[in-house]
Amino acid sequence: MTIERTGILLLVSGPSGSGKTTLCRRLADEGEAIYSTSCTTRPSREGERDGHDYYFISREAFEQKVSNGEFLEYAEVHGNFYGTLKTEVLNHLAVGTDVVMDIDVQGADQVRDCDDTSIQVALVDLFVMPQTEDELLKRLTGRGSDAQEVIELRMKNALGEIDNWPKYTYRLLSDTREQDYHQFKSLIIAERLKVSRLKNL
Amino acid sequence: MTIERTGILLLVSGPSGSGKTTLCRRLADEGEAIYSTSCTTRPSREGERDGHDYYFISREAFEQKVSNGEFLEYAEVHGNFYGTLKTEVLNHLAVGTDVVMDIDVQGADQVRDCDDTSIQVALVDLFVMPQTEDELLKRLTGRGSDAQEVIELRMKNALGEIDNWPKYTYRLLSDTREQDYHQFKSLIIAERLKVSRLKNL
Repeated sequence: MTIERTGILLLVSGPSGSGKTTLCRRLADEGEAIYSTSCTTRPSREGERDGHDYYFISREAFEQKVSNGEFLEYAEVHGNFYGTLKTEVLNHLAVGTDVVMDIDVQGADQVRDCDDTSIQVALVDLFVMPQTEDELLKRLTGRGSDAQEVIELRMKNALGEIDNWPKYTYRLLSDTREQDYHQFKSLIIAERLKVSRLKNL
Repeated sequence: MTIERTGILLLVSGPSGSGKTTLCRRLADEGEAIYSTSCTTRPSREGERDGHDYYFISREAFEQKVSNGEFLEYAEVHGNFYGTLKTEVLNHLAVGTDVVMDIDVQGADQVRDCDDTSIQVALVDLFVMPQTEDELLKRLTGRGSDAQEVIELRMKNALGEIDNWPKYTYRLLSDTREQDYHQFKSLIIAERLKVSRLKNL
């Protein structure tokens, strides 16, 4: 007997350096969930593939979709638009496929505010963050080649993002990569047991 | 940095033969949670240890505790009382220790109705059941030494219990022992990430 359930929409936020993108990609690579691909109006960079990294579309096409209400969430960043199409998510959820989204805190707010019942039933949100400010600084400093003011700005932005963690249902304090992934995967395994997503109750 | 959180109170229900007791015991044996020990007025059986299997207390002592409101849940079964003391649970939760309770559906109802905030924050409920009625029958039949009417009565009782699964937040359809335990443990790992149980928000 197959369990008839609708999919999970797992939103993952966190400051840069938290390892959230790696977690999401690995979950998708292991076939546990679909990694939701965003649309963007920015030009593709070397090595980026259309439909994998992003759907690269024109500003006109993007604006048309905005006015049609086709986006689950979207934002303008440094003059470029980024957004996730509702269809990109809903079609998967309906057939019981889990979807994972690497999303910033503003995007997560938009998804939470979406009044589509399928989205609300599917929604699970997680904030990934380093255990201490020292650890955050270490991760943001990277190879140590950046100017002091660049690092300070990144740190300020990261701390601003981190302030949002209490809005989330789950929080993961990052440890080793394997530990983090073990907890992350446990979260999706547990969510699959939720009675609220079973069909024909 | 230690995560400051209060403990989880994991209620596990299911028909006999679902393997719920084995799951709870194993979680406790691995040191992941404390197995909540009930009080009972029935005499101890060969091999049962006071304070491990049950706290064996007199009917007078039990009734006194009932009138003091000391029980989180209690019931009379075949003339004997069984119940879980609030202190047995609350003391562990306060220091961040997770507690697992193997509990019938009526007991779970009583815990859900408890208006103590610490209990409500801690509460997670899971229903464990076989995937099909055939599988249930197989598990209830056991060694095949029981009379037909005994098996029929067990089957009727089990089906009556199973009707209650939609009241639970999580449902586990049992598969192999290892698969079941993997999902069960994932549930507690995921619940430990819940923001609602972190202190000093």
